[in-house]
Amino acid sequence: MEDLWNIWFSELHRKSAGLTVKIKDILFSGKSDFQRIEVFDTEVFGKVLVLYGSIMISERDEFIYHEMITHVPLNVHPAPESVLVVGGGDGGTVREVLKHKDVKKVKVVEIDRMVVEVCKRFFPEISGGFDDPKVEIVYNDGARFMAETGERFDVVIIDSSDPVGPAEVLFQRQFYENVYRKLKEDGIMVAQTESPFYDREAISKIYRSFKQIFPIVSMYIASIPTYPSGLWSFGFCSKRFHPIHDFRGTKVDCASLRYYNPDVHVASFKLPNFIKELVE
Amino acid sequence: MEDLWNIWFSELHRKSAGLTVKIKDILFSGKSDFQRIEVFDTEVFGKVLVLYGSIMISERDEFIYHEMITHVPLNVHPAPESVLVVGGGDGGTVREVLKHKDVKKVKVVEIDRMVVEVCKRFFPEISGGFDDPKVEIVYNDGARFMAETGERFDVVIIDSSDPVGPAEVLFQRQFYENVYRKLKEDGIMVAQTESPFYDREAISKIYRSFKQIFPIVSMYIASIPTYPSGLWSFGFCSKRFHPIHDFRGTKVDCASLRYYNPDVHVASFKLPNFIKELVE
Repeated sequence: MEDLWNIWFSELHRKSAGLTVKIKDILFSGKSDFQRIEVFDTEVFGKVLVLYGSIMISERDEFIYHEMITHVPLNVHPAPESVLVVGGGDGGTVREVLKHKDVKKVKVVEIDRMVVEVCKRFFPEISGGFDDPKVEIVYNDGARFMAETGERFDVVIIDSSDPVGPAEVLFQRQFYENVYRKLKEDGIMVAQTESPFYDREAISKIYRSFKQIFPIVSMYIASIPTYPSGLWSFGFCSKRFHPIHDFRGTKVDCASLRYYNPDVHVASFKLPNFIKELVE
Repeated sequence: MEDLWNIWFSELHRKSAGLTVKIKDILFSGKSDFQRIEVFDTEVFGKVLVLYGSIMISERDEFIYHEMITHVPLNVHPAPESVLVVGGGDGGTVREVLKHKDVKKVKVVEIDRMVVEVCKRFFPEISGGFDDPKVEIVYNDGARFMAETGERFDVVIIDSSDPVGPAEVLFQRQFYENVYRKLKEDGIMVAQTESPFYDREAISKIYRSFKQIFPIVSMYIASIPTYPSGLWSFGFCSKRFHPIHDFRGTKVDCASLRYYNPDVHVASFKLPNFIKELVE
């Protein structure tokens, strides 16, 4: 029997091209103090979390984003004991951080408590790390936390949504300057930095800010099918360690990972010409 | 004034997820002896060629596919004088092949004359290479040509559409065996081999065939936003030359290219774990 429940989610760039996904079921649809939150079940991508109209994670490909935003910095820093995750309320980044045995403490600063609650309910295999005793969640505005905290960190991971809506402030220079100050003297910041195919002007601006603040700045990329254009970028910003020259091989069991491995670590920093021009 | 001409092209995987593109204008819609052919003008991707319901090229991102299917083999082979392109009726691969000054002859075997005619009319900047005196177009079934020709080639590029419709036969073992026989003793074949995210079973089967025929077989990948999942694979199959060990640097001016460069050449063979398992 044909299923006539014709509900589609379409995430469009400039209202004129993008990903469209047939919905099998609407598992959650609500509104927090900060944004709309939806959880859909889909045939191709499994369960999907949508924040502020954009797909944040899908069961089918979340491993790519979460492995790449985590294992790249944590395998470059020789002893990352304290890690701060800004955003990351779905828990995928925390799950990957906890695979590094040298990490003693993970702090998550998430603005939206409902994101964490929804993910604990619908994505337990992604958010399970929140129950680990090493992990502490602070519900606060990431920019305000970063300005005010007295703590310092080895690695800061900016696992934000897009620069529209609640995460907008996490793409501004003042915020990156505060991250720099709260990193230890050999600290590393990694941030998701949007699609190098679609968001070219925004990316150029972001990397100009990075370079005015950090001595070592590199972009790396990954293929993420549910993100706009399927091509995504990350900024590696560091006070001392170089992402390739100081990479001594991986400290996690790559056999348990599905995207990241030492070859991919190095290869992800080799940029196609049309991307390289954004950061030079 | 809002444009109410709400025509969308959607290319779906399993009828339930895929790319959707708003159409500004329908420039051509016809039916050849082999397939439907459409040319759309779109806001995000410019002009787009659709064969058998699938996007083959867009003005905005065709450079990625054409540079990667061409410059990888032609920079590994030390003296590629004779190149055969099977399919490739849009001309993008020929345009890139002609950037290699050591190439003396390019033969294109395209089954569908209407594809070439439509591309000459609507995509002159892509198909312009067909007018070069080094280029000869043969209108024939690629599989039949490969079985019957007495010619031998340094490099064969399988620039086919998907394994449904007219190109289905170009994904079968008998065809690859004929390519092997028509390659010179140090020849290289490169083929587009679909999405490693969506087409996993088909890819495993294709690479098993490759390995039964060729002594050197490697997959390489590229991000192509208009192709399903945005992640695409290519098979490098060779009698003698290794894609990395025998790569002596590029023989084309990479400043004129927009994706390919020597670092990308090497990096594109470094596969994420979930892709590596398809070809091991």
